[in-house]
Amino acid sequence: MTTPHRDGPLNHWVFTLSCVDSPGIVHAVSGAIVESRGNITESQQFQSADTGRFFMRVQVESPAGREEFESALRPVVERWDMTWHLDAVGRPLRTLVLASTAGHCVNDLLFRQRAGQLPVEIPLVLSNHGGLRDLVDFYGVPFEASAVTNADEKAAFEQRVLDAVDEHDIELVVLARYMQILSPELCDALAGRCINIHHSFLPGFKGANPYRQAHARGVKLIGATAHFVTSDLDEGPIIEQNVVRVDHSRSVAELVAIGQDEESRTLTQAVKWFAERRVLLDGARTIIFR
Amino acid sequence: MTTPHRDGPLNHWVFTLSCVDSPGIVHAVSGAIVESRGNITESQQFQSADTGRFFMRVQVESPAGREEFESALRPVVERWDMTWHLDAVGRPLRTLVLASTAGHCVNDLLFRQRAGQLPVEIPLVLSNHGGLRDLVDFYGVPFEASAVTNADEKAAFEQRVLDAVDEHDIELVVLARYMQILSPELCDALAGRCINIHHSFLPGFKGANPYRQAHARGVKLIGATAHFVTSDLDEGPIIEQNVVRVDHSRSVAELVAIGQDEESRTLTQAVKWFAERRVLLDGARTIIFR
Amino acid sequence: MTTPHRDGPLNHWVFTLSCVDSPGIVHAVSGAIVESRGNITESQQFQSADTGRFFMRVQVESPAGREEFESALRPVVERWDMTWHLDAVGRPLRTLVLASTAGHCVNDLLFRQRAGQLPVEIPLVLSNHGGLRDLVDFYGVPFEASAVTNADEKAAFEQRVLDAVDEHDIELVVLARYMQILSPELCDALAGRCINIHHSFLPGFKGANPYRQAHARGVKLIGATAHFVTSDLDEGPIIEQNVVRVDHSRSVAELVAIGQDEESRTLTQAVKWFAERRVLLDGARTIIFR
Amino acid sequence: MTTPHRDGPLNHWVFTLSCVDSPGIVHAVSGAIVESRGNITESQQFQSADTGRFFMRVQVESPAGREEFESALRPVVERWDMTWHLDAVGRPLRTLVLASTAGHCVNDLLFRQRAGQLPVEIPLVLSNHGGLRDLVDFYGVPFEASAVTNADEKAAFEQRVLDAVDEHDIELVVLARYMQILSPELCDALAGRCINIHHSFLPGFKGANPYRQAHARGVKLIGATAHFVTSDLDEGPIIEQNVVRVDHSRSVAELVAIGQDEESRTLTQAVKWFAERRVLLDGARTIIFR
Repeated sequence: MTTPHRDGPLNHWVFTLSCVDSPGIVHAVSGAIVESRGNITESQQFQSADTGRFFMRVQVESPAGREEFESALRPVVERWDMTWHLDAVGRPLRTLVLASTAGHCVNDLLFRQRAGQLPVEIPLVLSNHGGLRDLVDFYGVPFEASAVTNADEKAAFEQRVLDAVDEHDIELVVLARYMQILSPELCDALAGRCINIHHSFLPGFKGANPYRQAHARGVKLIGATAHFVTSDLDEGPIIEQNVVRVDHSRSVAELVAIGQDEESRTLTQAVKWFAERRVLLDGARTIIFR
Repeated sequence: MTTPHRDGPLNHWVFTLSCVDSPGIVHAVSGAIVESRGNITESQQFQSADTGRFFMRVQVESPAGREEFESALRPVVERWDMTWHLDAVGRPLRTLVLASTAGHCVNDLLFRQRAGQLPVEIPLVLSNHGGLRDLVDFYGVPFEASAVTNADEKAAFEQRVLDAVDEHDIELVVLARYMQILSPELCDALAGRCINIHHSFLPGFKGANPYRQAHARGVKLIGATAHFVTSDLDEGPIIEQNVVRVDHSRSVAELVAIGQDEESRTLTQAVKWFAERRVLLDGARTIIFR
Repeated sequence: MTTPHRDGPLNHWVFTLSCVDSPGIVHAVSGAIVESRGNITESQQFQSADTGRFFMRVQVESPAGREEFESALRPVVERWDMTWHLDAVGRPLRTLVLASTAGHCVNDLLFRQRAGQLPVEIPLVLSNHGGLRDLVDFYGVPFEASAVTNADEKAAFEQRVLDAVDEHDIELVVLARYMQILSPELCDALAGRCINIHHSFLPGFKGANPYRQAHARGVKLIGATAHFVTSDLDEGPIIEQNVVRVDHSRSVAELVAIGQDEESRTLTQAVKWFAERRVLLDGARTIIFR
Repeated sequence: MTTPHRDGPLNHWVFTLSCVDSPGIVHAVSGAIVESRGNITESQQFQSADTGRFFMRVQVESPAGREEFESALRPVVERWDMTWHLDAVGRPLRTLVLASTAGHCVNDLLFRQRAGQLPVEIPLVLSNHGGLRDLVDFYGVPFEASAVTNADEKAAFEQRVLDAVDEHDIELVVLARYMQILSPELCDALAGRCINIHHSFLPGFKGANPYRQAHARGVKLIGATAHFVTSDLDEGPIIEQNVVRVDHSRSVAELVAIGQDEESRTLTQAVKWFAERRVLLDGARTIIFR
């Protein structure tokens, strides 16, 4: 996070904001950055014609600590009534993973976390099956499995999720091919911090068995969609999508195998952007500051 | 179609077939080819697990003329009760184009026809607007426009389509961004020989204004779909699909502009495959022998 | 360019700059924009670790006219010794096109210019062959052809290029599959304002017959590269590249046909970005503010 | 490999051949298949205009065992002097993996082997570093590491490779980001059965540090190439290539991270095709029967 500097160590901050759009915002923000002796290393902005809101993400190298930087920013965020977030670039996001039997997404997340390619810290994987225990163990991550086959078990599992979120100060919950529908209550409790991977190119093939649907419809590309979870199934804001070409000769089982690559890379990409504070919400749509 | 050969000119045939699958078909077909002194230059086959049918496309160079080749094939096609088609490779397909105001698809088809890149012969373009007359004129293709603003005009326009199909011995009707819904009767009359380009990645965003729908839903890829026209709107068998990446910053108007490239190349590709006898129907799905 | 506004008509400006990187630039630029009552509608920036330079592109809606806006910017551009450019968003760039026999790139440029999808104004097409005359005529653009088969004809042709650049106040020269190598003198005279399309994925397959080279090497993707022309053949800064998948069955002639789509869309994209002032030079590399 | 059948268990065979092209080959092969009561489930063929050779791959379901099927094929393969191979569909290929410090390719191969997505059996991983021991251990695969820092160590390592090939009856050697150049002798010994992943889109950026070269050249797409190893460095026949879009803002380190995904999926794809007998050699080019 910090590198040596002739005036002392440099901090690297990421500051995101949204507010009602009006002139002067960029000038005010950059003024606060100058005041705290910062240098902008990355900057993106967007004005939403749909909602009239302004969105910005800046990365700033500065000798200023959090307190000093926040002091400089305070008049600005107050004047424009901003929704904002200040964080250290690269700080690992505390992330809870939910899984079932398929291991490809979990494997991709854990391999990249260990390889230092994904700024997350996964303190726990929860599953409704025990099958992934060995894989998760190998990466040294605690693993808990409990069956979800009736309403009571589902309630217990969801309570365990909420408890784990509290206990580990979880900032992001990832459904890594977790094959249970979350209750509306849990969806609401995790609003804006729960990402699911759906194994189709939404809005095509919502619901169960999307590859079977894709085969029946004879599509020429299959895909995967990472999206925020809402109580409206498979309708949450889309974060990332990818597709891959297929042809008539592929069986449903082959589509499933082919689609796995798109699922894991799409989910991992969405998690990475979220962890880097590149994902902002603009109504039912996402802004991705790549 | 024919090239000099020490035994006389060689014909280049394309033979397509479908029938109930059973052993021995390839051996029988290749036997008929050997019998007519042919050499297979391209061959593809597919067994549909869904319908139990067998599909095959072969290209054959042979000194045999149509009559001789058909004689050799006759026992085979009769024994397996095949649906089949025999054609000369490269023969231009008689193609009727329907258009409205957008010129990009029509331009792409006409430019490639003239450049010799698309084996079609377009004797006529029909439109419900006059705006594309200059463009079509430039390519030396007859153009007729008549408004379609009420039921009577629609009936008259559709009758003109049917008359033109008869008059010009049309083998394929292409809806090159023709912005009217065909009547069920016309759909039925043109079944299996009418291709439409829909400006979304079906089955997402059926119906009107797909780019507006795509913008509202916040998808990260937009696409185009070329499909056979059926009376079930935007539900006909899919021939080809392409997508292109977009982001949150694109307005609906920009999506429209970006999507045009995918529309024209997707439609042109579908027309090319159809003209080359590479598109076969297997229930509600297409087989594409690329 | 201007839209009604309660305080009078709004101008839409695009301002690009580069300078040695140091803190405070964004704040100073945004200050000048606030001073001239502007609102930033698009903004991108980049700090080059390779050259130590800072690059920025902003679009600004403002009631200020050019003189007023320039006055506000002047102290800023002087203080940082900026290389800069101020233009009206959407102003068509005066563009000279050079062509030979292949029409696909020329057709794509002219079709899009006419359709309003490409902010260029093409006053003239020069060619070393007469074959594209009809096509260019159709679009109402003057066309001149003169053979280039020896040193004298080449010198005369290049002089005609330079004269046309002067005469029409040309801002960009596009080599739309112009199949002659420009002299070093002409390359220098057009430095930074001449774009070529090379029919390979550079740096693979420089020089002549790239599709033949690609076939011999057995690559699985073929591509196209739009780049600035320099006297070092096919080594100029790359603006855009695209590839398309091919397989072993494709002949050289088929690669040529398949590659044409990538060539025209890659060149058109590069021209569009250049015309929108999105292409900046950072040593031997380009910055593309998409 | 075998499924119940009313006439007894069915075997599933894959038969590949190449020979000088002449008429009648398909008929003769399909005749042998009919004779051994087989049903063709997949068939591809290719005639090389470059070398005049014919290539074919068929999958056949048949109650015939290897001996019976070979008997039926023998007259055919002898008559046309075919190079041929007969194998059971899905039989895992005995594969030796060589690695260094980067784990992404090894992880992808081992994860997919365990998940049943890759028809290989990896009895051993050899490395010139010890860093991947834990990962390989987790998958239950023996791992041996020995340094290669001088000529003697290199000779010893290469002898160990040859011994392991013998000992384990190895059919394929995979260089999964093994960062040593093989000696010409080892290249020759493994000719046609050794696949390397090179971290660029060949023929661009051969040799060392391809991402550094790509950054310096400012390419807009980076890629990976899986190819057969020959003594001519990075010049062996290409099996598969993929690219991914990058922009000016990416540092060399970021290109390295981005490119890893393409490397692992490209290598895994090449290994899968090879193990499924879909890769044939036609001079310096590969035929891929996808």
